[in-house]
Amino acid sequence: MTSPAPSVVPAPPPKPNALLEYLLRLGDDRLILGHRLSEWCGHGPILEEDIALANVSLDLLGQATILLRMAGEVEGQGRTEDALAYFREATQFRNSQLVELPKGDFAFTIARQFLFDVYDVVLLEALTTSSNTELAAIAAKSLKEARYHVRHSGEWMIKLGDGTEESHRRVQTALDSLWLYTSELFATDAVEDELVRAGVAPDLAGLKPKWEALVRDVLQRATLTASNDVPRPASMRGGRSGAHTEHLGHLLAEMQIVARSHPGATW
Amino acid sequence: MTSPAPSVVPAPPPKPNALLEYLLRLGDDRLILGHRLSEWCGHGPILEEDIALANVSLDLLGQATILLRMAGEVEGQGRTEDALAYFREATQFRNSQLVELPKGDFAFTIARQFLFDVYDVVLLEALTTSSNTELAAIAAKSLKEARYHVRHSGEWMIKLGDGTEESHRRVQTALDSLWLYTSELFATDAVEDELVRAGVAPDLAGLKPKWEALVRDVLQRATLTASNDVPRPASMRGGRSGAHTEHLGHLLAEMQIVARSHPGATW
Repeated sequence: MTSPAPSVVPAPPPKPNALLEYLLRLGDDRLILGHRLSEWCGHGPILEEDIALANVSLDLLGQATILLRMAGEVEGQGRTEDALAYFREATQFRNSQLVELPKGDFAFTIARQFLFDVYDVVLLEALTTSSNTELAAIAAKSLKEARYHVRHSGEWMIKLGDGTEESHRRVQTALDSLWLYTSELFATDAVEDELVRAGVAPDLAGLKPKWEALVRDVLQRATLTASNDVPRPASMRGGRSGAHTEHLGHLLAEMQIVARSHPGATW
Repeated sequence: MTSPAPSVVPAPPPKPNALLEYLLRLGDDRLILGHRLSEWCGHGPILEEDIALANVSLDLLGQATILLRMAGEVEGQGRTEDALAYFREATQFRNSQLVELPKGDFAFTIARQFLFDVYDVVLLEALTTSSNTELAAIAAKSLKEARYHVRHSGEWMIKLGDGTEESHRRVQTALDSLWLYTSELFATDAVEDELVRAGVAPDLAGLKPKWEALVRDVLQRATLTASNDVPRPASMRGGRSGAHTEHLGHLLAEMQIVARSHPGATW
């Protein structure tokens, strides 16, 4: 974790709003990606892989549950994790656009997962030393799962990239279209800055070189080419502030319909 | 397990075809029910319940993988578990009709799961003493999972049955429509008879009273009424011999499309 320089005068703890926003970002990334992965349940080409992807999905949904529960507690208005998952509109979601893109083919799913998993490991490692001990504990628990996830998706990247001509072509195409979306993972704003100053969150810009080195190492072994960074079009910014692609709306419609059809039901 | 009377002349081992058929019945029940449950992934009304159902689904799919792998080995023609899952037609599936019915509402899903889970525990307990040691070992491992499943679905039956007026009505309606399908779980034929004689399989008719006692105990605590056994219409017989409802075809179309779109693909 890139901590601020030590000071005799400790920085004040961040305002609740910044922490709430940050927890929504962490929780929503995992909720939406977990949901996307769950779309493979029973639809994969190989039973064991189907089960493996579903297990990753469950890990992410479990992490989302804990993070959104904490978000509800920080907010202090009695919203549970279920209220946050099922009764917010798309513009109130704080996930990155990367995780809301449709699942695509298997190569797309794996490539997206790999890019996210490396980010997840790098971020969670840094968060284990967060000054917020509850968040640090969640990060430590999630990190174990994330390390398993990245091993799985990384092995698939090599298998697909260094596989048949078709699998190579598909995963390279996926990478090319996904690359633009990765910059959002490292974009910072006033919320992040405040939390970095308080030692709650790591400096995302400082994490990017580590992420990129890990990603490029696997891509090289997979005989795949990383795209060059190009400026992101304005239309692709802003998942963190509620600007989403149309795909999130469709996903939420599916995810939220049961809960919304029976608001306040006891089951 | 209701074993045949001891004899000085041991019965011959069953023909491979009977064992193959039996393994397909066991494997297909779990594959199809696991797939049905997976349809809840990300669509449940409560995050934690969503995750719990998905975990049950994964257990069942894991069991199906092992059972179908063994079926392929017994068959001896090189068919893998994936070939059996993705490249058979509906008439070649050997699951009971109970497990292929559409997932319905949450009450329907829970009621079906409960009826199956009790059956599963009773059957697997008996199979742990199978003369086929490989099958006995699979049963012992699966039994631990099945005991967890039935605790979960049984608690939900009580929560729904003894819950609100609406939840009671829904789960009673589900039970009424599901009850007819349970008799198939205990129907026997020449395949079963042969395996019972060889000590490989338990006598299903002998297991039914135990199943019914366990089911009625929970239903009573849930203030629910078990339907009376009525003769099953001929149209509802026969999942074990490949006669299925139209619902299985739709499920397979979804489940098999990815594998069939890329036959022989390495991923």
